[in-house]
Amino acid sequence: MAIEGSSKETRQEPIRLGMVGGGSGAFIGAVHRIAARLDDHFQLVAGALSSTPDRARASGRELGLDPSRIYSDFREMAIREAKLKSGIEAVAIVTPNHVHYAAAKEFLKRGIHVICDKPLTSTLADAKKLKRAADESDALFVLTHNYTGYPMVRQAREMIANGEIGAVRLVQMEYPQDWLTESIEQSGQKQAAWRTDPARSGAGGSTGDIGTHAYNLGCFVSGLELEELAADLDSFVPGRQLDDNAHVMLRFKEKDGARAKGMLWCSQVAPGNENGLMLRVYGSKGGLEWTQKDPNYLWYTPFGEPKRLLTRAGAGASPAAARVSRIPSGHPEGYLEAFANIYTEAARAIHARRNGETVDPAVTYPTIDDGMKGMIFVDACVRSSKRNGAWIKVGGLGDGRDNSAVAG
Amino acid sequence: MAIEGSSKETRQEPIRLGMVGGGSGAFIGAVHRIAARLDDHFQLVAGALSSTPDRARASGRELGLDPSRIYSDFREMAIREAKLKSGIEAVAIVTPNHVHYAAAKEFLKRGIHVICDKPLTSTLADAKKLKRAADESDALFVLTHNYTGYPMVRQAREMIANGEIGAVRLVQMEYPQDWLTESIEQSGQKQAAWRTDPARSGAGGSTGDIGTHAYNLGCFVSGLELEELAADLDSFVPGRQLDDNAHVMLRFKEKDGARAKGMLWCSQVAPGNENGLMLRVYGSKGGLEWTQKDPNYLWYTPFGEPKRLLTRAGAGASPAAARVSRIPSGHPEGYLEAFANIYTEAARAIHARRNGETVDPAVTYPTIDDGMKGMIFVDACVRSSKRNGAWIKVGGLGDGRDNSAVAG
Amino acid sequence: MAIEGSSKETRQEPIRLGMVGGGSGAFIGAVHRIAARLDDHFQLVAGALSSTPDRARASGRELGLDPSRIYSDFREMAIREAKLKSGIEAVAIVTPNHVHYAAAKEFLKRGIHVICDKPLTSTLADAKKLKRAADESDALFVLTHNYTGYPMVRQAREMIANGEIGAVRLVQMEYPQDWLTESIEQSGQKQAAWRTDPARSGAGGSTGDIGTHAYNLGCFVSGLELEELAADLDSFVPGRQLDDNAHVMLRFKEKDGARAKGMLWCSQVAPGNENGLMLRVYGSKGGLEWTQKDPNYLWYTPFGEPKRLLTRAGAGASPAAARVSRIPSGHPEGYLEAFANIYTEAARAIHARRNGETVDPAVTYPTIDDGMKGMIFVDACVRSSKRNGAWIKVGGLGDGRDNSAVAG
Amino acid sequence: MAIEGSSKETRQEPIRLGMVGGGSGAFIGAVHRIAARLDDHFQLVAGALSSTPDRARASGRELGLDPSRIYSDFREMAIREAKLKSGIEAVAIVTPNHVHYAAAKEFLKRGIHVICDKPLTSTLADAKKLKRAADESDALFVLTHNYTGYPMVRQAREMIANGEIGAVRLVQMEYPQDWLTESIEQSGQKQAAWRTDPARSGAGGSTGDIGTHAYNLGCFVSGLELEELAADLDSFVPGRQLDDNAHVMLRFKEKDGARAKGMLWCSQVAPGNENGLMLRVYGSKGGLEWTQKDPNYLWYTPFGEPKRLLTRAGAGASPAAARVSRIPSGHPEGYLEAFANIYTEAARAIHARRNGETVDPAVTYPTIDDGMKGMIFVDACVRSSKRNGAWIKVGGLGDGRDNSAVAG
Repeated sequence: MAIEGSSKETRQEPIRLGMVGGGSGAFIGAVHRIAARLDDHFQLVAGALSSTPDRARASGRELGLDPSRIYSDFREMAIREAKLKSGIEAVAIVTPNHVHYAAAKEFLKRGIHVICDKPLTSTLADAKKLKRAADESDALFVLTHNYTGYPMVRQAREMIANGEIGAVRLVQMEYPQDWLTESIEQSGQKQAAWRTDPARSGAGGSTGDIGTHAYNLGCFVSGLELEELAADLDSFVPGRQLDDNAHVMLRFKEKDGARAKGMLWCSQVAPGNENGLMLRVYGSKGGLEWTQKDPNYLWYTPFGEPKRLLTRAGAGASPAAARVSRIPSGHPEGYLEAFANIYTEAARAIHARRNGETVDPAVTYPTIDDGMKGMIFVDACVRSSKRNGAWIKVGGLGDGRDNSAVAG
Repeated sequence: MAIEGSSKETRQEPIRLGMVGGGSGAFIGAVHRIAARLDDHFQLVAGALSSTPDRARASGRELGLDPSRIYSDFREMAIREAKLKSGIEAVAIVTPNHVHYAAAKEFLKRGIHVICDKPLTSTLADAKKLKRAADESDALFVLTHNYTGYPMVRQAREMIANGEIGAVRLVQMEYPQDWLTESIEQSGQKQAAWRTDPARSGAGGSTGDIGTHAYNLGCFVSGLELEELAADLDSFVPGRQLDDNAHVMLRFKEKDGARAKGMLWCSQVAPGNENGLMLRVYGSKGGLEWTQKDPNYLWYTPFGEPKRLLTRAGAGASPAAARVSRIPSGHPEGYLEAFANIYTEAARAIHARRNGETVDPAVTYPTIDDGMKGMIFVDACVRSSKRNGAWIKVGGLGDGRDNSAVAG
Repeated sequence: MAIEGSSKETRQEPIRLGMVGGGSGAFIGAVHRIAARLDDHFQLVAGALSSTPDRARASGRELGLDPSRIYSDFREMAIREAKLKSGIEAVAIVTPNHVHYAAAKEFLKRGIHVICDKPLTSTLADAKKLKRAADESDALFVLTHNYTGYPMVRQAREMIANGEIGAVRLVQMEYPQDWLTESIEQSGQKQAAWRTDPARSGAGGSTGDIGTHAYNLGCFVSGLELEELAADLDSFVPGRQLDDNAHVMLRFKEKDGARAKGMLWCSQVAPGNENGLMLRVYGSKGGLEWTQKDPNYLWYTPFGEPKRLLTRAGAGASPAAARVSRIPSGHPEGYLEAFANIYTEAARAIHARRNGETVDPAVTYPTIDDGMKGMIFVDACVRSSKRNGAWIKVGGLGDGRDNSAVAG
Repeated sequence: MAIEGSSKETRQEPIRLGMVGGGSGAFIGAVHRIAARLDDHFQLVAGALSSTPDRARASGRELGLDPSRIYSDFREMAIREAKLKSGIEAVAIVTPNHVHYAAAKEFLKRGIHVICDKPLTSTLADAKKLKRAADESDALFVLTHNYTGYPMVRQAREMIANGEIGAVRLVQMEYPQDWLTESIEQSGQKQAAWRTDPARSGAGGSTGDIGTHAYNLGCFVSGLELEELAADLDSFVPGRQLDDNAHVMLRFKEKDGARAKGMLWCSQVAPGNENGLMLRVYGSKGGLEWTQKDPNYLWYTPFGEPKRLLTRAGAGASPAAARVSRIPSGHPEGYLEAFANIYTEAARAIHARRNGETVDPAVTYPTIDDGMKGMIFVDACVRSSKRNGAWIKVGGLGDGRDNSAVAG
């Protein structure tokens, strides 16, 4: 082993956490719980893990919750926990998308921090209301665009911000999967069922489920804002109600004197791709390439020099990467660690709030605005595709008023 | 070494070859000569290697040509060689694009087979005239879309034709390079100068130079015909006259009950990409992935099974791949071998002609029609981009009359 | 996301865990704590984190331990915790190697389960005493040869046991690193200092630190027992007291009618290798290849067929891999998850003990015997190298009496 | 395309080449012919392609040879061609190993340059005689250790000679194949039959066929001389007469104050390995890694910096690599091009001889001494293995008198 343990932060009492959704058998709930636990910054103490009382109770017991803090109604949980002396300080919302808004607002308005799965909501209307709720609340709103938690993603962002690839010209994003190649939603696969159902997922299928991740990653790393997009969406599988493949061309707002362009491809019908999120960014002075399935590597080419393989915690690792790394280079960290990094960054912010301190400016996590941007992206993709791939302008976030995408 | 030499074809007298263009210092001329020589099917006996007499003479001597068969005017060469008893049987045309048509027609009309570099011509008007000339000639017209010569590309095409990935849904093509990241055409780099000059290259920059390769490859392997495209072209480098990056969305004609879509990205400003031609094709039953820089591999995923790494001449190699392989698996063949495969396929056809035999139906090489399709592709990209990415329909090839792209 | 959460086991009260060693700044202590926490099977409640009282106290507070359960003497901790009604049920020993034996025996003799870092001890004499202590105790002894926790390592082992590569002929192990390329132990790097110090590490340098991992992995996956070895050890860095590179040839005992051979290379002076543990096993019917830095992949070649890339939780994942996987394929799990798998397997065994149940035979973790084998391996390497690479037979484990390596 | 054609050498008349062996169906004969032809430096004009007259005639006709220069006896060919005014200047010997010596000496003594396949001969006794014949002749003797022709191999050698990785400590060589996993020599596979037959191959099986390549590559790149080795050879396949797997430990002579060590593994029974020649060299300041199946890449790690992926003709390509490259980076060159580089280097030397000039010191090809070293290596492996892996010293080449390996 080559490195010493990372410099310790002062020990803080773990944050009391509740969870909405995530009962037995839910994939993403288990992921959130591991992520919350990994760095020992959170303690799960309450839950509305299901809206079905029996299932809520069984799931809560399974997780060792105090029976008095097992709920089947998130509103009741919010009300009661807000009154408890040692009630929850934060809540993780891991329900299907259409419940996000209703749940989040109950906690936000009671000053309980919200850590919410993506995409933000199932409709743009809900998203706008949720943004208002978040803006009006003192509590933090953290969106788990977990891929931004990977150390080499942080490093790519930092390198671009430092000008190491010059002015960005190209942002190539892709996120192919293959698990919906066949019509498994019709044979009762639960994950497939809700993710292909407009009522529970919203207007976007692959665009909402994974396109938002790719788009968020592209913006996060490049530091660019989208100006407009043109999209061509498909449902290749007969009978599927939502898109399972999207081709998108993007034009970004001017920055550093360049107007970058990009492409985004997301698909759930590309056999051989398990979870192929990939980002490539090219500028006037160099290029960066990262792929999620091999997340400890970042390819960096300063133009005119040999390609370099940067590794997590290895030679050339930047401060932004180092602060979200746990173990030495060559010992791979993965998806759960990246997810935990979002939780740990949230914990740092929450601890600062608790202690009346300013949050360290290095603390980085996806916010309500990232969520809004994702919703606007999905909305714009759907609208562009309906208009045969016409270019759709997406404005600022603001409150949605001066925003053609939102207004559209 | 694990395999015996491949079954021998009967020895044929080498084909007498002339060359137009390709004087000293020209990259692609040297490639054509190696390709012609590799399998010993051609003998270079005449050349109009440059239109500058001194340079033509020096270049011809360098190559050991008989001084009486060194020309500085391709027309003169065509006329004289056509009259010689042992005049050239075929000519390789390796000039900049704008000379292709004028040169090719002189040989075609005298019954001399033409092997021509791509893209077909610099203008669609020339392309249409060249198609007419080729159609009216008894001589063969072979276009060196050399990437179709790679064994694993042949295998991919054969597997798809055999239904091994089901109905094709997606054709993802990309061809990033980085050598035009900076404005080297302004500092006298010769290759850059003519390739970024509309007068010599035509309307397409990266689209013509490399986009046509990617598009040709996608069509060749998938067996699909394009229906329409929407393109967004850029010249990121200030002062550049032709596109150096293109984002294209594609819709193919229906086949096997599916209407496939695709994306094509070509770029000459993506640092870290030397010659990154890649093709990925996904169908209802599986996926295939190939990348030019590692050409001896083909990734194949039958949906629901583990990914398989097929190798040239290895276990699982198909007949179509085997017939264009020279050496056992694990011994990499590369770019020159693939290029030589085009020449060797041409030789097989020429030998058959010479012997009054039918050409073996397995013989495969890019034709005038592939060249036309490439020209139509470039034209459609340029027109779509000028109309802000509007969808442009591309019709059949025919003679260009019933073809909106050609007519447009 | 493609898969449902894995089938739930019934909730068990977390196991009360103590820790010896692992104070602030110790790399491996932090790893053990994350591993223990990840699946929520352990709760750290006591610690002798340092033998220096002040440091022990500070480290304990940092981890939120009850001050009454912070110790600076592991013996005192063992005595007192054994008497507490809710004293620790298990202890993690994460000190330098020379302390393992003394610490472990105090807990073993009081019926407290021991989870101990590798290598087993610093001397073969200590190892034999520790084996006796473990054999005489009712408590479990778990050695954290963590690389056996990777799902694809489990799968490789299962495939070989099932005969999928036929009779094993070759076991090629390697574990190159580069962090000791220069003499950093002389400039005060703490990790380097104790790992290159015979008094704290034992007779083996790279052989003990990483060679034991590679050897353990080779035996674990192949299911073979070593018969003899010949080794050539070096200290390339001037002044270094222990080996920093080892070349070893191995002969295994007959199995399935074949006598397999192997090579093992471990190095800490191979620039460009961060943590390059790799295992390749070849049999009469196929081959398997795995590398730690890309742990979610396993290459499998049935002889005469194309190579297949098996992925964690992907198509072709075996039961042995699936039971130690948390998340869907394409979402990489890494080093910490594999380490946690050792803890979780230990927890399953401890829970069974607690409940008076039989341990599920699928539960798999490295034992005292694996530790003994590692010590015998190091001892044999050192002895062989001293005798100019003579072959050294290693006998059975037994009690060391009938064992030439132990007796030697 | 990014680069101009490489600077031209002055045109030389092609060298008149004869061939011994390589009749129809012989794999390596066809490879030599392509290699000789690729750069247009040789013209095949005579051949004793088989010792069976009918087969010799048919093979010669197949290749378009003048019937008067088709022989079935290499001695006759040597005698007659030596007398012809335009007789052959060089001969390629591509027979099974046991014929190399007898054939080569006939040409050498008549001043005809010899290009000979490896290994040098089938016995050490023959090798010594051949060395004497080569030393006494004015003609050149070139051994086709073709892997030294790869550009990135040349670059690795140059970088090490320039001190870029410091003093070499480790040379790790491996060459696994799988084609002899089963006993195909007993079912009549011709290549397998002679390569596993001591009478035709010599004392070494995998050691002679591929081990010599790996060993030659390790010495060529590292610039080191072997001092001694210890080997463990096996024939895993029942009934096989020669080794099909070898594990070897090596100690090199001191250089730059360091005594490097190495391992060599060659195998023909490792399923999943087609032609897995790999070389890794580590020094006090950096490391280099190259693998034959991806030959256009060279991994370079300056210690303490990120790994760099050097590419053929790419950024960072060295002069030694550039002079044996034909086409721009990103366009893969392969096995045949590397093989042709040996021929082209030979041609440069032969041209210099012909013109009475000094050979450019940059010209590099394997010589009779490299062949001797390979024979000594095989001999030492076999002797060590028979003595249970005892270390065998290999002395200088000299004339074989002061050389324990040769004398032994």
